[in-house]
Amino acid sequence: MGAADDTSDVVYAWDKNLLNGLSLDEYGIKLDEKYSWINPGEGLVIRPLSSQDFDKGFTDVLSQLTRLGDVSKEDFQKRFYAMKASGGYYTLVVEDTEADNGSGKIVGTGTLEVEQKFIHSCALRGRVEEVVIDKEYRGRKLGKLVLGLITVLSKKLACYKTTLECKVENIPFYGIFGYKEDPEKFMQLRFHD
Amino acid sequence: MGAADDTSDVVYAWDKNLLNGLSLDEYGIKLDEKYSWINPGEGLVIRPLSSQDFDKGFTDVLSQLTRLGDVSKEDFQKRFYAMKASGGYYTLVVEDTEADNGSGKIVGTGTLEVEQKFIHSCALRGRVEEVVIDKEYRGRKLGKLVLGLITVLSKKLACYKTTLECKVENIPFYGIFGYKEDPEKFMQLRFHD
Ligand SMILES: CC(C)(COP(=O)(O)OP(=O)(O)OC[C@H]1O[C@@H](n2cnc3c(N)ncnc32)[C@H](O)[C@@H]1OP(=O)(O)O)[C@@H](O)C(=O)NCCC(=O)NCCS
Ligand SMILES: CC(C)(COP(=O)(O)OP(=O)(O)OC[C@H]1O[C@@H](n2cnc3c(N)ncnc32)[C@H](O)[C@@H]1OP(=O)(O)O)[C@@H](O)C(=O)NCCC(=O)NCCS
Repeated sequence: MGAADDTSDVVYAWDKNLLNGLSLDEYGIKLDEKYSWINPGEGLVIRPLSSQDFDKGFTDVLSQLTRLGDVSKEDFQKRFYAMKASGGYYTLVVEDTEADNGSGKIVGTGTLEVEQKFIHSCALRGRVEEVVIDKEYRGRKLGKLVLGLITVLSKKLACYKTTLECKVENIPFYGIFGYKEDPEKFMQLRFHD
Repeated sequence: MGAADDTSDVVYAWDKNLLNGLSLDEYGIKLDEKYSWINPGEGLVIRPLSSQDFDKGFTDVLSQLTRLGDVSKEDFQKRFYAMKASGGYYTLVVEDTEADNGSGKIVGTGTLEVEQKFIHSCALRGRVEEVVIDKEYRGRKLGKLVLGLITVLSKKLACYKTTLECKVENIPFYGIFGYKEDPEKFMQLRFHD
């Protein structure tokens, strides 16, 4: 980890440096300094999920997307390290470093999953999962930044395609980065809640 | 590996024993002895993908599903071991052990991918990928066996749901095991072929 980290025992879920040099220019989105990925607004940072983000409310943000269920700090850490060991899980978080009297609060997240294939010359395939911005922080271009970074990161990691499933009302949001409704159908079999 | 393996240097992509005790009864499918997973027909076996399956034409079967591209034996093995190290990839193959003068031929395949989540109490989620049966072997219930085994394996591994994307004409095939079209839309962004 670089000198910029002031907390020495922070473990990131994946290599922070992968974010270096990512640009959203190719999607026609000019980010001013203020909205760059490193500083998307006063006090805000976008970075990989860290081992300490349970305490900063990571799961509270996820609970605004779907059923979170019971997730203790230990559950979070077990899953965090299992994902890190497996590889292929790139979870981004947006932190408001000034919230909660400066101890920091997670206010958004999104995950890129990279699947390994034999087809398409042993390709990699990206999946966008769990994109959500805290209610209080919506409409400030944070969702767009998270999705944009996931998208260009998947390209940088050499995915031949990146896909997702979404509600009809969110199609225009994903359309910003060129995601298009596919003729293939999304099928589910649910075993339990 | 157990004493039942006659080739000592075969490496399986995942633990063969996970197939023990799987049953398709709960889906109303009674398999006679002849069609049980261990022996789905004269000379046929269903088992995990092995490190030697490139030589048995594994990629030839995949090429009947989509663009395979260039996949050398080395590419296959590199990907095989990367998937095994990562965990979460459960590729099944159907082998006709009597084909090619008894050296054996892969005539079908299907993959269960198990994704790790924080949501739903740090759940696991299954994905069905790359289900294909060799043209010469279709219509013999092999596709049904592969999909059925993937489905019950995903349940055994405690996935809270298992999903897939498919062409409209294959919806009834997946319907056999209870997969239902979901209101969520499948979106794609393709970077290259
Ligand atoms: C969808 C979501 C992530 C968007 O985040 P956000 O930070 O509020 O959105 P942004 O401020 O970045 O808006 C990005 C752009 O998309 C547009 N947009 C936002 N939500 C949209 C939606 N649901 N449909 C269409 N466009 C949308 C905005 O108008 C904006 O466009 P503009 O820059 O041209 O004005 C957020 O609303 C959210 O968390 N929703 C609940 C969880 C959810 O549905 N997640 C997606 C799962 S499929
Ligand atoms: C789809 C596929 C895997 C089915 O394999 P198969 O071994 O030929 O199918 P089975 O013999 O196991 O048939 C299973 C059952 O599903 C039915 N079925 C088979 N293909 C079907 C289809 N495309 N749509 C609807 N039902 C289908 C059969 O009628 C049979 O039902 P029954 O037992 O009640 O008679 C095979 O046709 C194939 O490889 N197709 C090309 C690749 C492909 O499209 N894969 C799916 C990607 S989404």
